[in-house]
Amino acid sequence: MRIARYRTSDGRIFAGLVEGDAVAPVAEESTAYMADAVRDLIASGENIAANGPAVPLADVELLSPLAHPEKIICIGLNYADHIRETGLDTPSKVLAFVKTAHTLTGPHSDVVVPAGSTEQLDWEAELAVVIGPDGVFGYTVADDVSARDAQFADGQWFRGKNFDGFCPLGPWIVTADEIADPHDLAISARVNGEVVQDGRTSEMIFQIPQIIAYLSTYMTLNPGDVIATGTPHGVGMGRTPQLWLQDGDVVECEVEGVGLLRNTVRIK
Amino acid sequence: MRIARYRTSDGRIFAGLVEGDAVAPVAEESTAYMADAVRDLIASGENIAANGPAVPLADVELLSPLAHPEKIICIGLNYADHIRETGLDTPSKVLAFVKTAHTLTGPHSDVVVPAGSTEQLDWEAELAVVIGPDGVFGYTVADDVSARDAQFADGQWFRGKNFDGFCPLGPWIVTADEIADPHDLAISARVNGEVVQDGRTSEMIFQIPQIIAYLSTYMTLNPGDVIATGTPHGVGMGRTPQLWLQDGDVVECEVEGVGLLRNTVRIK
Repeated sequence: MRIARYRTSDGRIFAGLVEGDAVAPVAEESTAYMADAVRDLIASGENIAANGPAVPLADVELLSPLAHPEKIICIGLNYADHIRETGLDTPSKVLAFVKTAHTLTGPHSDVVVPAGSTEQLDWEAELAVVIGPDGVFGYTVADDVSARDAQFADGQWFRGKNFDGFCPLGPWIVTADEIADPHDLAISARVNGEVVQDGRTSEMIFQIPQIIAYLSTYMTLNPGDVIATGTPHGVGMGRTPQLWLQDGDVVECEVEGVGLLRNTVRIK
Repeated sequence: MRIARYRTSDGRIFAGLVEGDAVAPVAEESTAYMADAVRDLIASGENIAANGPAVPLADVELLSPLAHPEKIICIGLNYADHIRETGLDTPSKVLAFVKTAHTLTGPHSDVVVPAGSTEQLDWEAELAVVIGPDGVFGYTVADDVSARDAQFADGQWFRGKNFDGFCPLGPWIVTADEIADPHDLAISARVNGEVVQDGRTSEMIFQIPQIIAYLSTYMTLNPGDVIATGTPHGVGMGRTPQLWLQDGDVVECEVEGVGLLRNTVRIK
């Protein structure tokens, strides 16, 4: 199944099932503060089935498939070629940091960055795992957008990773049963159509079961939690010359069998 | 007003108003996933008034006054004497990192740490700001519990700050109108009754308006968000010899006019 979160033309938000070029509603999201219809659907553990007529995907706005997960854990430095391009040391253990929910934005949304706030805006295509009541619920695609100047000026990566809108997510969640091997998928990024990242998830240093096992030694993973599993080589800071995103640039992040994000950078 | 979140003997959870030794219910928390009655009350912007009979505080269990805020931002290295004891550099800008909601625990709860997961368990008493629809809603007390070995082994502080239960919070939120000057409060910690931290919030390098203004340059602060404003000197890592928390230790963190946390460490 492909589970999306979307807004219809009348402004209502739904969790729904995508089939082909259409989406059928499963549950409407309440207007309560921090509501998240997909998160709650996953946490319920209930059977997920459409209960309304499908509408063309072209007629709705896809939103980030989760709006308010409890946590979005990002794994740093999990691809060897990416570690080389950053010049950082290879972690001996799973290196985690976080993005908070205010960074989430839709798979086709603009990433709006305040003018003057960063001169080093970068992309990171990642396979993201969504946690269910019993282990992995499914997979989606994340762009771990990063302001490198902020990231490295602070030492702590929080600020550089947590500007509003720095986590495009989607376009939907593909349930785990549909992905034969999450460690054998092409993962790529393009900027204005030019391929900049072109890796495979087989290159991960810590694979998904190891990541989940290690994180679980110190914290409880809860349904709807997202784990972005790291990015392959080819980010802007690792290129010669370095390449920083500019106003109007279109960033595409894609994971084979999962989906494609396409976001335009807006400096305002 | 003092706004608490508490569980009654029949297992129901409420947001309520504390007066003297009693608490009166304002709203019952739903049993929905990631519900948080106090967060939603703050976000509603509505008048907060009791709508039921008060019960003795001794008859209820005080919980963390927020259960699922969108974010818990911690400010690192915000007291000069604390920076000296850590041996780290003074940040030129507000240094933020996060705890996620799974770390929250009650003002009198045990902090349960898996045996063997850390040898360097430390405390950090902090004044925490709670964001409302229009700026500061109120204040509470946080213990930014830290596993120093994990914190510094990773470089990134996320793991060392985010074990389950590493954020005792409470005992309630005191609304902003009751605190004449949040930068003129005694802040202290005791371990097994011995005073280990004894500072004043006047020592903050970045004061609360500066912190909020700076964070707001890159991210939107939302109602219910918590900002822990940093800890004064006297943490275990800064003492000679260093002092690490052990099974059975009782940690008290107190901010004048706001309240007192009292948590027992359990190594299991």
